[in-house]
Amino acid sequence: MSEKMKGSFTLPGEAGYEKLTLDMAKKWGADVIRDSDGTKLSPEIIDAGYDIYSTICIIRGHNEWVKEHPSCVQHSFLQSMPKIADGDFLSIHLLDGYFTEQFEVDQTKESTDLWQVFDRTANEEVPRRLWNYERESGNVVIKTVRPFHEYTVNFLAYRKWEEINMYNHVTNSWTSEHLIPVDPRREEAQEYLLSWMDAWCKDHPDTDVVRFTSMFYNFVWIWGSDEKNRNLFTDWASYDFTVSPLALNLFKQKYGYELTSDDFVNKGYNHVTHMPPTKKQLDYMDFTNEFVVSFGKKLVEIVHAYGKKAYVFYDDSWVGVEPYGDRFTEFGFDGLIKCVFSGFEARLCAGAKAETHELRLHPYLFPTGLGGAPTFSEGGHPAADAAVYWNRVRRALLRQPVDRIGLGGYLHLVEGEDEFNDYIEKVADEFRLIKTFHTEGATYTLPYKVAVLHSWGKLRSWTLSGHFHETYMHDLIHINEALAGLPVDVRFINFEDVKNGALNDVDIVINAGREGDAWSGGDAWKDEDLVSTLFKWTSEGGIFIGVNEPSAVSGYENFLRMAPVLGVDVDRGGRICHGRWKFDVKEIPGLFPAGSCVREKEKVMLTDGRARVLASENGLPKIAIHDFGKGKGIYLSSFNLNNANTRMLLNLMIYAKGDSLTETKYLTDNADCECAYYPASGKLVIMNESDIEQETSVLTDEGKIKVKLSPFETYIK
Amino acid sequence: MSEKMKGSFTLPGEAGYEKLTLDMAKKWGADVIRDSDGTKLSPEIIDAGYDIYSTICIIRGHNEWVKEHPSCVQHSFLQSMPKIADGDFLSIHLLDGYFTEQFEVDQTKESTDLWQVFDRTANEEVPRRLWNYERESGNVVIKTVRPFHEYTVNFLAYRKWEEINMYNHVTNSWTSEHLIPVDPRREEAQEYLLSWMDAWCKDHPDTDVVRFTSMFYNFVWIWGSDEKNRNLFTDWASYDFTVSPLALNLFKQKYGYELTSDDFVNKGYNHVTHMPPTKKQLDYMDFTNEFVVSFGKKLVEIVHAYGKKAYVFYDDSWVGVEPYGDRFTEFGFDGLIKCVFSGFEARLCAGAKAETHELRLHPYLFPTGLGGAPTFSEGGHPAADAAVYWNRVRRALLRQPVDRIGLGGYLHLVEGEDEFNDYIEKVADEFRLIKTFHTEGATYTLPYKVAVLHSWGKLRSWTLSGHFHETYMHDLIHINEALAGLPVDVRFINFEDVKNGALNDVDIVINAGREGDAWSGGDAWKDEDLVSTLFKWTSEGGIFIGVNEPSAVSGYENFLRMAPVLGVDVDRGGRICHGRWKFDVKEIPGLFPAGSCVREKEKVMLTDGRARVLASENGLPKIAIHDFGKGKGIYLSSFNLNNANTRMLLNLMIYAKGDSLTETKYLTDNADCECAYYPASGKLVIMNESDIEQETSVLTDEGKIKVKLSPFETYIK
Repeated sequence: MSEKMKGSFTLPGEAGYEKLTLDMAKKWGADVIRDSDGTKLSPEIIDAGYDIYSTICIIRGHNEWVKEHPSCVQHSFLQSMPKIADGDFLSIHLLDGYFTEQFEVDQTKESTDLWQVFDRTANEEVPRRLWNYERESGNVVIKTVRPFHEYTVNFLAYRKWEEINMYNHVTNSWTSEHLIPVDPRREEAQEYLLSWMDAWCKDHPDTDVVRFTSMFYNFVWIWGSDEKNRNLFTDWASYDFTVSPLALNLFKQKYGYELTSDDFVNKGYNHVTHMPPTKKQLDYMDFTNEFVVSFGKKLVEIVHAYGKKAYVFYDDSWVGVEPYGDRFTEFGFDGLIKCVFSGFEARLCAGAKAETHELRLHPYLFPTGLGGAPTFSEGGHPAADAAVYWNRVRRALLRQPVDRIGLGGYLHLVEGEDEFNDYIEKVADEFRLIKTFHTEGATYTLPYKVAVLHSWGKLRSWTLSGHFHETYMHDLIHINEALAGLPVDVRFINFEDVKNGALNDVDIVINAGREGDAWSGGDAWKDEDLVSTLFKWTSEGGIFIGVNEPSAVSGYENFLRMAPVLGVDVDRGGRICHGRWKFDVKEIPGLFPAGSCVREKEKVMLTDGRARVLASENGLPKIAIHDFGKGKGIYLSSFNLNNANTRMLLNLMIYAKGDSLTETKYLTDNADCECAYYPASGKLVIMNESDIEQETSVLTDEGKIKVKLSPFETYIK
Repeated sequence: MSEKMKGSFTLPGEAGYEKLTLDMAKKWGADVIRDSDGTKLSPEIIDAGYDIYSTICIIRGHNEWVKEHPSCVQHSFLQSMPKIADGDFLSIHLLDGYFTEQFEVDQTKESTDLWQVFDRTANEEVPRRLWNYERESGNVVIKTVRPFHEYTVNFLAYRKWEEINMYNHVTNSWTSEHLIPVDPRREEAQEYLLSWMDAWCKDHPDTDVVRFTSMFYNFVWIWGSDEKNRNLFTDWASYDFTVSPLALNLFKQKYGYELTSDDFVNKGYNHVTHMPPTKKQLDYMDFTNEFVVSFGKKLVEIVHAYGKKAYVFYDDSWVGVEPYGDRFTEFGFDGLIKCVFSGFEARLCAGAKAETHELRLHPYLFPTGLGGAPTFSEGGHPAADAAVYWNRVRRALLRQPVDRIGLGGYLHLVEGEDEFNDYIEKVADEFRLIKTFHTEGATYTLPYKVAVLHSWGKLRSWTLSGHFHETYMHDLIHINEALAGLPVDVRFINFEDVKNGALNDVDIVINAGREGDAWSGGDAWKDEDLVSTLFKWTSEGGIFIGVNEPSAVSGYENFLRMAPVLGVDVDRGGRICHGRWKFDVKEIPGLFPAGSCVREKEKVMLTDGRARVLASENGLPKIAIHDFGKGKGIYLSSFNLNNANTRMLLNLMIYAKGDSLTETKYLTDNADCECAYYPASGKLVIMNESDIEQETSVLTDEGKIKVKLSPFETYIK
């Protein structure tokens, strides 16, 4: 790093802190200055010769207009809190339990026509003639009930407070006017927003890049009235907030069938992204995605017409913007920006089809970080936080590059934070250097093509929905995060892909989830062609790795449909009187790094006694490997992210593929370290991924290289 | 205990140990001497003036006859080990994996006509024309297969070795001829057995009581060829060993529809008693029970004709003999004998309709006990074992009496075991004394009528199937064992009973199991009338106690159908994005005895936030109580038997019923002690149920009684 490189860094500027802004821009090698939600840039900053990013959230900030066009307020279906009939009739107050600053009943006829009342005890809809809505009281009255059955009402509500604004208001005690989200479904809203966009571009001649946050529809976030349960439902990827009478009408015209309120409410469960999607849900998502892209594209075209670039921030109002959706490139975005806590998010960004990929690093320049922990305030350690985040992201960027990094928030908070500022300088330099290696040629990977198999496939590549800390209870996010930095080729496929030949080009399949969830696959496993395709593929040499309850579905000879491949099944009760195979644990030398471990799982059992059990606890197999024709099945009862387990996962692949655990080149011999090799430039990067000093060796074409690394150090040769 | 009582005790005598036999008979106050499997009585014993029990197992010991009548050998359907097709055809060797000393393929046409071949991957039967059986090789060849589908064959096998004989042979290295079980379904077998019975009675003029072990069909016990998995399937109560071509033919004639092999094999699961029965299964059980009773009755009549009594031992070949079945009294048995490890087994015996109820106490007089632990051999502590078993049985007998107790096994083993012999003397005396209290009038109970609700109801009162140590993984056996000695009225009901008004006379319902099992109830909970009946009953004052996954079934607004009553649900994945209610744990003073605890259960959540959480771990509610109308729902995430938890269960009932935890009479104030009060005789019994000294007080009509008790002591006032 003799010659200092510059650029590829986006700095959040702040009016009132002009000197700081320009000093930090120089220190961190910034080429772009941006505003943030809550900060502005002053002329002195704007005119300092940097490119300027400006943030807009297109659907909020139009209260005046939207109050004149109430039908253009965004909606959601809600289910009233369940109530049991203990008399002849039942009166249900719709908004009981909901945060009434967020929701208001849409009482228009086009709304009430969509409502449904259900007897949830009998799982039956109550005929319309048996209930009516009392406008004055806000009650639905069911005139004829079945005694001691439970009833609910699906109704349509306006969402009168844009959720990110609501969150910031409530969390930071803001007092400004509540912003109302505009639904661009209606033509009048589209006309208004297009002209607003045009005016905005005119008014911002200095803006080089318009950063959209993101498009129109927020991830679902339904609040309750009770502070003990404020968060009734949050799903990072579901489509509940896109609905409206008009959308349903257009859907019916296009798809030839009607969606009902319960296609959204789903008995009160809503449609959690962690569960397999229904056909109707996929149709509706496709329908909505088409709209978001087609109208979003018009906004992008305006931006382009003014000679500006349009980037999209993959957060908040991003529903319908899936970067791995087939239509994503049609938006015409020039860049994709992703805020990252984790390596899998860096890979998500890096792998999307966009000209520019940019990461927003953590920590944000906010006084407190996630979960209320201090960052840039008393008790915070921003430099240490940054090192932890960079440690996760770095390994992903060594495998697949992005184009830019940057920060967000209030720049004034870094004043005096010399340790943090120096660390970010180091990160920026390291980032720019690594980027040059990729420019010369791809990273070396082992010749293993790994497919992660789940219900969503490519559409939800890398992420499950939301960040790691929001999805940690799923084994798969731990696996995705491990894979994000492993020297293997990774792709995400769904069950239809398997039937359409996706395995022809795959060496290893991973299926990791619990019965019925989107990651295991649920009813998809009822498809015998899926199962036999995987049997065939494995028998011909494929490696099937199943975690927790892979391929689980009830009603068949095995609970895990891949049990014949795995040599392991999970007893759902029907085999409780069946004997269990006795087994000895036979470890594979060198396979398990010190510290690797998986949690036991109740009721795991061997099927035919031929599986080699590699780890066990309380008599339960935890890790087993089973020959199946020329291939193998590998079962893990769970997977939890840490350095040792990450290497264990790689070692399982190496062993199953018949390669050497000790003689394979370009691997460290210490699970706390990883390396990446760039054949074109001959560069080798070795990372210490722990907060203590480490020693490791790497076998290369030029012999063994041994290094000692300080905590989190990046060694480059 | 001033005057020594005698009688009500059955002693196992042993030829060659005549003095010992008569000495012990005197010491223990025996009035009956019996033989055991493996011992004989000599004339000196027989003529000593005691009543004589003789043990017979009617279906074995007829090898000569049965070899001449091979169609009268008992059968079972078996499923071949699954095999995957990787070519054009598939050849399956039927007996692979099975213990060929137990099974032999029945190759007769009436047998092969019943066989079925399944594509288990597609869940479809393979048409008959596509496979054939090659007699010489013992293979089924499937001529046309779907590649990479898994196939199995259901076939009918003779069971050529009676399983109890097989077990004793293998365990004790016996070398005598393998006994073949006779199936009394065929008329020639019936004729033979009736004349054999008659001859037997003639030959045994000194026998007062014929003890049947038990009737015709053993509990299911399928052995494998591999010593690492010898025990392929064991179920204490399923009917697989009763099947035969003739039985299926008669069934069809009577019920108007055919049963197939897979109605037994059930995809390889068989029909575990821990899972809810199907309609076909219940029909077949009823059909078989009718036969067992009708033919069993003829044998009993012969016994009676010789002036002898007929007792039935409720073990081994007991299938079709259910003491709580509607036909049980039709047998005409004079007594029911039950071997008991636990209190629930004592209650099972005590509550059955029979003239004489007799318990066979543990430990048996064998060198080694269960699981191979030493009893009457080096390292054994038979007196200590006896104390532990008596401690469990005693509390049950204080609630409901039996008529007799006794021992089994080889009497010579007690020679020199003075501590054991003295302890049994004490137990026998204690038993006889307690029996007198019951004679004067019933035990006092709290006015709580408790119904345990599960799929089998009354038919499986008290037991799940098998002993405690065989069913310990089910919460319900822990609950049944706790209930066996609690001062409440207990009954067992099924879901049909609920709909037929069984709750009219019930204060407390307990439903304890896991999703889909017989104890939770599985699909029975899809019945909206069942659910609303329970809603109504609870709202009118009922107490519904749900444990683990009570009332669980998928497809409804709640996973636990009783969630509205319990205030608690279990998330099956569909609510993972739904917020969880914050709660404070609010204990109820005096409710939890020291040492009481339940295991946490993942994904337990509050529904409406109104449940009072009494215990929690890792943020999960473990015990909660929830008002529902005038009644209450109580949720426990598990229940594990110990003294503290037993009292906790009682305390939950007392609290829920609105009674005082401290002022309720005839309860100890120490969970390691229990008491029983007999109003008619004014007797109060206080037990120490721990192996250390205890102090406790009991509030009585005459004030508080305080006692200090030595380990396991029985105090009587």
